[in-house]
Amino acid sequence: MFKIHYFPAPGRAEVSRLCLTLGGIPYEDVHYTGATFAEAKAKFPFAQVPVLEFPDGKMLAQSGAIDRYTAKLAGLYPEDPLQVAFADQAVFLLNDFTDLFTSTYSLPLEDKIKARQEILAGKGGEKLKMLEKLVASAGGGYLAGDKLSFADLTLFVSFSTMICGQLDGMPKDLLKDYPALQAFRNKIAAEPGVKAYYDKHSDGFRAAFKPDA
Amino acid sequence: MFKIHYFPAPGRAEVSRLCLTLGGIPYEDVHYTGATFAEAKAKFPFAQVPVLEFPDGKMLAQSGAIDRYTAKLAGLYPEDPLQVAFADQAVFLLNDFTDLFTSTYSLPLEDKIKARQEILAGKGGEKLKMLEKLVASAGGGYLAGDKLSFADLTLFVSFSTMICGQLDGMPKDLLKDYPALQAFRNKIAAEPGVKAYYDKHSDGFRAAFKPDA
Repeated sequence: MFKIHYFPAPGRAEVSRLCLTLGGIPYEDVHYTGATFAEAKAKFPFAQVPVLEFPDGKMLAQSGAIDRYTAKLAGLYPEDPLQVAFADQAVFLLNDFTDLFTSTYSLPLEDKIKARQEILAGKGGEKLKMLEKLVASAGGGYLAGDKLSFADLTLFVSFSTMICGQLDGMPKDLLKDYPALQAFRNKIAAEPGVKAYYDKHSDGFRAAFKPDA
Repeated sequence: MFKIHYFPAPGRAEVSRLCLTLGGIPYEDVHYTGATFAEAKAKFPFAQVPVLEFPDGKMLAQSGAIDRYTAKLAGLYPEDPLQVAFADQAVFLLNDFTDLFTSTYSLPLEDKIKARQEILAGKGGEKLKMLEKLVASAGGGYLAGDKLSFADLTLFVSFSTMICGQLDGMPKDLLKDYPALQAFRNKIAAEPGVKAYYDKHSDGFRAAFKPDA
């Protein structure tokens, strides 16, 4: 059986968890705390998680690689290379947004909140406007062709994470100024497989991964 | 014909230029200066380059998307999803390394040099050691299976860029402490199609993209 090694939070493992779940591929979630990860990390390729462990014990690191691979297994990777290109474009634009916050994670709480608010008021807001335009151009549909793909799941997980309360300084109503992003998050949250997953996994921050009430 | 919109430098367009060239797919390089880019940028999807323009005028942004798409066109994207996963893993690990330097580009020269040296002495050096180990594990071969892929070209372009003198504070002999990375850069530089490209395009920084003397 596949194993996904990560912390309990959605974070960088959630897209691959959703892919395997939606694809009906059994896997085991192996969860770490800060302390158990510190003990275990030497066994992972780059001392990092998430890691996808194959049934034969081989390990794959890097969520960008894991997400695309599990999407292929699950039929959530478009067959048309051109559709993949536009799926990738959306995911890499999202990465540009989330990367802006990398340096904030290690800051003390007050500085973290201030730094994140400054990013949202500047470059982060610009990227969100680009994402809004990109998602709006899909006209209420999926990001790549007429089928759900890893790109939809990636944006869904990221937008849900932003509003779930896990990230100090990220307002829970962040998406209210981005109606296309909000509608898109809701659309993916209402996908039967996605909805069933969060009906089952509604612990902690995952309450915010459900469709808006 | 395809067009690649970018600055003249190798940068984030070079992998796709190499893919199209090696695949024998004609394309036009459209070069910008700071000033002409400022005039043109509104026409690009996210006001950024590189952009791949399709023969029908459609535009694809984000080098991660462009590189993989042009690799598929050129037969430089592995057919086996597992090999793609390990190609992606290498490229995303490299991205972790290069992303460390993002905040340095806008610094004044002296601060830039200092910041880059600090990164190389800390987290950057750690990532280079991981890349060294990953490349060494390929045992002198390619990163994904027994064929050249976009992952090899991506690491080649990045290592060549590091030592070409374009990045202030990045020592030209950086790879001397990483023998597997140095040998790997040389191996890819000596690929007939790659070598032919840099025999033709040996302007400025591209002199350092040739095999070591």
